[in-house]
Order: sequence, then structure tokens, then C-alpha cells
Amino acid sequence: MEPQKKRPGEFEVIGRYFAPLAADFPGALNLTDDAALVRHGEGRELAVTSDALVAGVHFLPDDPPADIAAKALRVNLSDLASMGAEPLAYTLALALTADIDEDWLAAFSAALGADQRQFGIGLAGGDTVSTPGPLSLTVCAFGTVAVGKALKRSAARPGDAVFVSGNIGDAALGLAVLKGELTGLSGEDSAALVDRYRRPQPRCTLGPRLIGIARAAIDVSDGLIADLGHICEVSGVSATVEADRVPLSAAAREALSRDSGLLVRVLCGGDDYEILFTADPADEDRIGAAAAAAGVAVTRIGTIGEIVQGAAAPVAVTGSGTAGLDLEAGGFRHF
Amino acid sequence: MEPQKKRPGEFEVIGRYFAPLAADFPGALNLTDDAALVRHGEGRELAVTSDALVAGVHFLPDDPPADIAAKALRVNLSDLASMGAEPLAYTLALALTADIDEDWLAAFSAALGADQRQFGIGLAGGDTVSTPGPLSLTVCAFGTVAVGKALKRSAARPGDAVFVSGNIGDAALGLAVLKGELTGLSGEDSAALVDRYRRPQPRCTLGPRLIGIARAAIDVSDGLIADLGHICEVSGVSATVEADRVPLSAAAREALSRDSGLLVRVLCGGDDYEILFTADPADEDRIGAAAAAAGVAVTRIGTIGEIVQGAAAPVAVTGSGTAGLDLEAGGFRHF
Repeated sequence: MEPQKKRPGEFEVIGRYFAPLAADFPGALNLTDDAALVRHGEGRELAVTSDALVAGVHFLPDDPPADIAAKALRVNLSDLASMGAEPLAYTLALALTADIDEDWLAAFSAALGADQRQFGIGLAGGDTVSTPGPLSLTVCAFGTVAVGKALKRSAARPGDAVFVSGNIGDAALGLAVLKGELTGLSGEDSAALVDRYRRPQPRCTLGPRLIGIARAAIDVSDGLIADLGHICEVSGVSATVEADRVPLSAAAREALSRDSGLLVRVLCGGDDYEILFTADPADEDRIGAAAAAAGVAVTRIGTIGEIVQGAAAPVAVTGSGTAGLDLEAGGFRHF
Repeated sequence: MEPQKKRPGEFEVIGRYFAPLAADFPGALNLTDDAALVRHGEGRELAVTSDALVAGVHFLPDDPPADIAAKALRVNLSDLASMGAEPLAYTLALALTADIDEDWLAAFSAALGADQRQFGIGLAGGDTVSTPGPLSLTVCAFGTVAVGKALKRSAARPGDAVFVSGNIGDAALGLAVLKGELTGLSGEDSAALVDRYRRPQPRCTLGPRLIGIARAAIDVSDGLIADLGHICEVSGVSATVEADRVPLSAAAREALSRDSGLLVRVLCGGDDYEILFTADPADEDRIGAAAAAAGVAVTRIGTIGEIVQGAAAPVAVTGSGTAGLDLEAGGFRHF
């Protein structure tokens, strides 16, 4: 409501740090207009997702600005990937605290630029405002997908196999490292886990290749078990996960070998941003080919069944070290 | 980062208050998937805009939740209107403070529902997170417009006339009332001004009717003079505003009659959310017809000229009470 003059003004910030990011997306109109123009092309439609990140809630306030930028963008790209959409553009609404200076903005915007090149997207528009704090940012990302072909959570069927990309649990263990709750690992292992927490790797090359193969799909943000539960609820099915099959990084295996109790964090911790999907088990070869073409590992970790009457939860976990595992206690909610 | 359980959980909040708002927009997929699906239709494209609002910066923390909802949505719809786009859908990212209870959410979501019906839009998706504060929200709104026909800021030409919809200055005077800086008006006049501050009236019926008639267009959010300046900068022109022609409400006229110094706030105060546009003066009859069809007044307030070499600012103001007016001092920046 009041004029604020502590930082370079809004127009200077936009002109210096954000307009260059919009240069390659013609519909952004150089960020000089009230709205951007976006087209999805014939026979396609837009997939649209929006995620808000708040300092102290979704990232640590002193995280490097480049990591904050990457996380804000990539959690949204992960949503697009899980629906099989190809990323196209994004808008960014940035609420800046008074301590944010030009160095921060330079590092932040440079990281956005690097991710734009990596993922083939452009900045379409946005808003830059001041906040008494905490720093927060909302990305709205747009992808395109063939009309009617987007992967949804509701398409799982009894008899499907359950697959997941990449490795599970690294991000949750990385957060534990940052919070001082997981110590004793080598510096290399610790750094690898922290990097997975700070830098999600959205599976943009895999998602679109799963169209016509996967049935239900979701990205793992709330945690493997919770997100598989979301598929089960919407599809009206149950699921069983074989814990011994859940893919783990070397660092996560090392952490688990020291403290098997960390398994709850691995299965329930969230922030993995892998694609979790179901498919006809007969399609495992096609899935392997898609994974190879995408350059991403895909692992079969369980099965989909009928709804189990009287079951406490839609997802059961089997395997060594899972008896009596209190998965509810590990439930991870961003809210 | 930590589980938070003080309020009904994220899924309950979404299910109870927001999923009903998505029921009429099939692409929202009932808010159960990672992204929404949006199509612009053949021969059209999407106009996309995003605005963030922070409590204490863009609205008063104790504003009624219905007004906060309306403002968040309408400032975005105003952006679409100024480009001539017809509103279609929106996403909402909501960062809630711990004191937000179910009564607040009920009033907030009811107001969104009322505006959805009024403006013919649906909730496509979004995100709900917790914040230590302040309350903030980001809306990303989508409209459709015929390919290549969107109104832009860059199309003003010397010789154009300058027009504006509705009345100017009410919102800035309403904010002054709320802050105790403008007293002595009747209760009715005060309430009318405050309502204009809290409840923008996006000109969604007018904007699309200006396609093919208006040249440059913008919505008045930073202030009449500043926003006309934006058109001038991007179009490479200058402008002159005849202050006596600027349309005023009865309440604003009453306020000005008591304190002519308020003219700076009227011309520069912002938050009007009217459409400011330029057009060939020969098209004034067509503009009148469009305004009548839209049910919105449109007033001719000035002219566009060549760039004036050596001028301190691109916009000049003429008329009674404007000599020596320090427009810069009234400059209103949201940043």
C-alpha cells in the first residue's frame, strides 16, 4: 500500500533480471503487457499446475537462491511430467523480503535461466511484490499434451504393476542431514542426499514417453506411500509395495545399513519428485524401452489389487524390516 | 517442512472449500490430479496473467475474507479484460496463516464462487500451504482471445485519443478513508469509496468489445498517469491528459471540492482497475456503442502525441488545479 524504495524498483528488477528470461518466449511480450499469450497447438491441450513455496516451510531460509529457483520450477515441472505433458512455459509470482538484494536476484534468475535451457521452457509472465516475510514464490507451469491423453491418478486397475522412476528417499534423508538428524555419513553421501533435497530432478523426458503405456500416474511429493494412496483412493483400488524392491541410492543404502529405522522416512518422507505409475505387467518391456530412451531408471515395486474391505489403509508394505512399521507416523504433509 | 495439524488438513480444506469451486470446470479433474487441463479453442489463444497479493501490502490484514477473495480474482480478470480476453479459468495458490479458521475459509470460498458465476469462470487448480505469515495469495488467470488480436500496450500512435472506462480515483480515496487520512465525507460517500478500493470491477464485458477498435490498452493499477506512461514508453509516444475530463464519481467530486489537493491521489493513486486505451478519434462512435453494449461508461480524456524531446515525463496533465501539480510525489508503486 505504501511506496517502497529500498530495493531497485519493480520495473528495474523485472527489466534487469526477468525480462531477459522471457526473451525466448514470444508470447511473454517482453513482460511489458498485462498478460502473456500461450498456445497449445492443434490436437493438444495445456496441462497447468501451480505450486507455492514458502521459506521455512518448503525450503530452508538460507538455502542458496539458485536452489530455491530450481526447486520452485522443478516441483511444477514434475507435476507436468507425471501427467505426460511436455513443458512449455511458466509464470513466476515472487514475494520478496527487504533483505533480498541484487546478488540474490542475480543468482536466482541465473538459475532460472539455466533450468529454462535444460527443460526447454520460457518465462511467460509473473508478478514481483514486497512482503514483510517470509520470502515466498508461486510458479504456475504450462505443458502440452495430446487431447485426452494426459495420465491421471484415476486409471489404476487391479492386476496392474506399480513402477517408480529414479530412487526414493534421498530427499527426506537429505533434509534429515540438513537438520542435523542424520549424522555419521561420509561427506560425499551427505552431499548427495542434500543435493537431492534441494534439486529435484523432474522426469520430463520420461513422462511424455509413458503416454499410452502407463495407466495411473502421480509424482512423488507427499511420499511414496501417501502418493500411492492417492492413486488408490481416486482409482478405487488397493496396492502392495515390496519394500525390498524400492530403488535406493548408494547413500540411502548406507544410511539404512546404519539405522534401519530410517526406512519410514524413505518410504514416507516425500520430496522425491519421481514418477510413480501403474501399468499392465505385460507392458514391462515397453516401459523398459521408454525408460532407456528417457535416460531414467524405472523399477517395478509392487502391485495393484481390489479394495480390501476393512483395511486400515489402501497401501500395504511387505518385506524385510517392515513388520510393525508405523507408516502413519512417517506421514509427511506439506500443509 | 514439519507436519502441521492445527487446521483441517490440506486435503480436507481442498475437498470442503475448493473442490466444489472446480466442479463446473471439467479440466480441473476435481482437483485430484497433478495438473489441470485447459484448452483455448480453435483460432484462439490463451491470455495468462498472475498477480500476488500480500496482507499488509495489497490489502489490509483485517479486510473481510470475501473482499480479499474478490480482489485477488478481479485484479487478474482486469488484466485479461485490458487485453480483450474473455475469462475462462484460474488457479489459486493460498498461503494461510495459523489464525485462518473454517469461518474464514467458508466466507473466502463463497466469495470466489459468487465471482465465478458473475464472470463465467471456473477454478482449474492450485495449491494450499501454511505460512508463518502474512497471509498471501497468488491467482493465475486464463482467458481466451482470437489469435493475434489481443490488445497490447505498444500500439498507441500519435493522433490517437485516450479513453478510460468507469471512474478514476475512487479506490485511492477509499484507501485514504480506511487509513483515516480522508475524513468529513458522509457515511455513504465514504462507504462508496471504500467499496471501490476493496471490490475492483474488472471490465470483462468491455475489453473483448474493444478488439478491432482500441489500439493500445492497459488496466489502471499503478495509477492513471503511471499506466498511461507505460503505454507511452512501450509505444514510443507522449500523452496529454485533460484533468477536467477525467471521470469522477459523486463521492470523489465531493472529496475534491473539500480538498483540491486530493487531485494527485485521484490521478496517481492506482487500484482503479479501469481500462485505459487509445483509439483513432474517428472511432468514437464505435467506442460509444461498445461501451453501451458492455454497460460501462467510457470517457475521452486526452490525446497521444509524438515523443517530446527533453520532456521530463511522457505524460502531461492540463486543466484547472494542475499547474505545479507534483505528480511524481503521488506516484504509486505496488513494489
